[in-house]
Amino acid sequence: MDNFTFYNPTRIEFGRDKEKLLGQYVAADGIRKVMLCYGSDRIKRSGLFDTVAGSLGEKGIEVTEFGGVVSNPVISTVRKAIESVRANGIEAIVSVGGGSVLDSAKAIAAGTLYDGDVWDLFIGKGVIEKALPVYDVITMAASGSEMNPTGVVTNEETRQKLFIAAEPLFPRVSVINPALMRSVTKDYLVYSAADIIAHSIEGYFTASVQPHFPSRIVESVINTVIETTEILLENPENDDVRGEFAWAATMALNGMTLTGTSGYSYPNHMIEHSLSALYNVPHGAGLSVVMPAWMKWYSPKNPGQFERFAKKIFGLSTPEEGIVALENWFNRIGTPTRLSQLGIGEKDLPAIVENVLANAQAFGLAGVYTGEIVTRILENAL
Amino acid sequence: MDNFTFYNPTRIEFGRDKEKLLGQYVAADGIRKVMLCYGSDRIKRSGLFDTVAGSLGEKGIEVTEFGGVVSNPVISTVRKAIESVRANGIEAIVSVGGGSVLDSAKAIAAGTLYDGDVWDLFIGKGVIEKALPVYDVITMAASGSEMNPTGVVTNEETRQKLFIAAEPLFPRVSVINPALMRSVTKDYLVYSAADIIAHSIEGYFTASVQPHFPSRIVESVINTVIETTEILLENPENDDVRGEFAWAATMALNGMTLTGTSGYSYPNHMIEHSLSALYNVPHGAGLSVVMPAWMKWYSPKNPGQFERFAKKIFGLSTPEEGIVALENWFNRIGTPTRLSQLGIGEKDLPAIVENVLANAQAFGLAGVYTGEIVTRILENAL
Repeated sequence: MDNFTFYNPTRIEFGRDKEKLLGQYVAADGIRKVMLCYGSDRIKRSGLFDTVAGSLGEKGIEVTEFGGVVSNPVISTVRKAIESVRANGIEAIVSVGGGSVLDSAKAIAAGTLYDGDVWDLFIGKGVIEKALPVYDVITMAASGSEMNPTGVVTNEETRQKLFIAAEPLFPRVSVINPALMRSVTKDYLVYSAADIIAHSIEGYFTASVQPHFPSRIVESVINTVIETTEILLENPENDDVRGEFAWAATMALNGMTLTGTSGYSYPNHMIEHSLSALYNVPHGAGLSVVMPAWMKWYSPKNPGQFERFAKKIFGLSTPEEGIVALENWFNRIGTPTRLSQLGIGEKDLPAIVENVLANAQAFGLAGVYTGEIVTRILENAL
Repeated sequence: MDNFTFYNPTRIEFGRDKEKLLGQYVAADGIRKVMLCYGSDRIKRSGLFDTVAGSLGEKGIEVTEFGGVVSNPVISTVRKAIESVRANGIEAIVSVGGGSVLDSAKAIAAGTLYDGDVWDLFIGKGVIEKALPVYDVITMAASGSEMNPTGVVTNEETRQKLFIAAEPLFPRVSVINPALMRSVTKDYLVYSAADIIAHSIEGYFTASVQPHFPSRIVESVINTVIETTEILLENPENDDVRGEFAWAATMALNGMTLTGTSGYSYPNHMIEHSLSALYNVPHGAGLSVVMPAWMKWYSPKNPGQFERFAKKIFGLSTPEEGIVALENWFNRIGTPTRLSQLGIGEKDLPAIVENVLANAQAFGLAGVYTGEIVTRILENAL
């Protein structure tokens, strides 16, 4: 078991009607002017925008709207928002939407107080020492961003999908109301399931120090995701089950699953980020393709943990059986497991490999994942 | 799944040498004068006192010593410390010791800023709105106090062992260094194991709403405790295993195991507090006596969850088998399971029952646990 720091000051407000508390929390922090970030107009049609804006307005908080954040959010949008925040003397960012909106909000919050271009913070040219406070209502359970200090944004010019991470980026308050997630489509539900599982297994399989306790937490997350996804595909209105799904998503990436572990990395995310950056595929769909392919290549390096996975998740015996069971489960719920399902063919591999290698440094995997290795992994997904 | 708030801002510094960081964190909060609370002189002989005081002194922080906190800590000691804190203009409390010292530190921190007698805060006559910041180095894994906002203290005059709970009582920084716990005796190791299991099962069995995910976290905690206790009894120097034991202790009572649950209560703690208050038995030893007795009485009220417990913890089938297995495990590791092992006999039951009923209000169980019921539970432990 290795040394660690665990610090997670985000207040989670989970459940029915909790979005109505947002104004109260923002006001308690003495904030008078916020930017309300969102994606499409869907949250206006559903009434959620009005609920949140109303909760803020009731406390006398001035709201500046900033809509149009897209999934796989882009740095140009973040730059535009930062200009508006500075011009309007805005004191905090409120995100209403999924992980893309929240990740953008974090980048805006950090970029506003950084003296330089915000992309510097993603490529290590600048350090995040402070950020505006961020509050959020999360409408899709997957990214885990609601309880961690990281954000992922794509630079459309350089075709890089990279992340920021720093303590000032922990949301002050995150609202998780499963009822607000009913409108997530079946496609995005199963992509989310893949995303949560990916967040869980990266550390579980790659850590050089992996105590039993964090392994058990990971297995709790994955078993919950498998169980609840199957129920939600049948009955999307079951808020109790959607709540368990959502909370498992949060737990998968709030730091708990990594306590006491060390030497872990995020190779599946590294490879998937290139699929998203180059082909704009949904992150979870890319991950369900990459994971089984990566696992087939990686499992001989950590057979004990793969055997454990097979047993604890699927009640099976060998590493291979566990991997096939996961792949079959992805197929059954309807998230892709082959590059061809994403419209990507063998001829595209060199471009993907090149993009992966360009990002390997940011993932701490330069030299570890060579072009040959990445090619071999991608070939497993053809 | 029920609505919940999860908020836990304590910074955990876990591992080797982390106690040396304490001065840095206290200084970062702008604090110049602390009271350093501890129990016996053991921490002076071991050098830990000097390490912590040195870490504070290096940062120019003035240290006032306050030793002599006993296990099952008493309110008279807390009152004495509050006087000294006020007289010396102390700005924060540093606790070095086990849960008893830390719980006392929390009571001192709250009592100092309360305009009245500190016991008011335990009996609901006063409300904790603020407290001095608390920092700690925990030297025994059991109470979970290092990552929660509660503290338990005994009033020697009224013979009540009651608790306080409020957000200002979350420690700012808690150091958990397994190497500092090597000196815990085998007796206290097994009492601690019982204590951690008790913290885990109260909600698990009593909640009227109990989603699968928190059940899985509880089972992760208990399985880790069982596995690591057995190893530590053979090899107390194994810091990796002691680390997993310690982190499981923290996780058992940091709020995670209760997320989404509701309607839970702490009947085992309620009954045990009376054993501690009347006979000064170690808390964990009292709990390992109370738990199987309570489970035998309670299991027909929640057979499904008891069946789950039997299966997930011991690989067995029926509620009865699970309870007997736990009782046998307690016997095997050497923590008591009978009142007679605590020197308590049948003639003592009326006095215990009377004490329990006097505290039932504070546990929210007045009218639920009648004298007849408590007697029946205690009779199971004769």
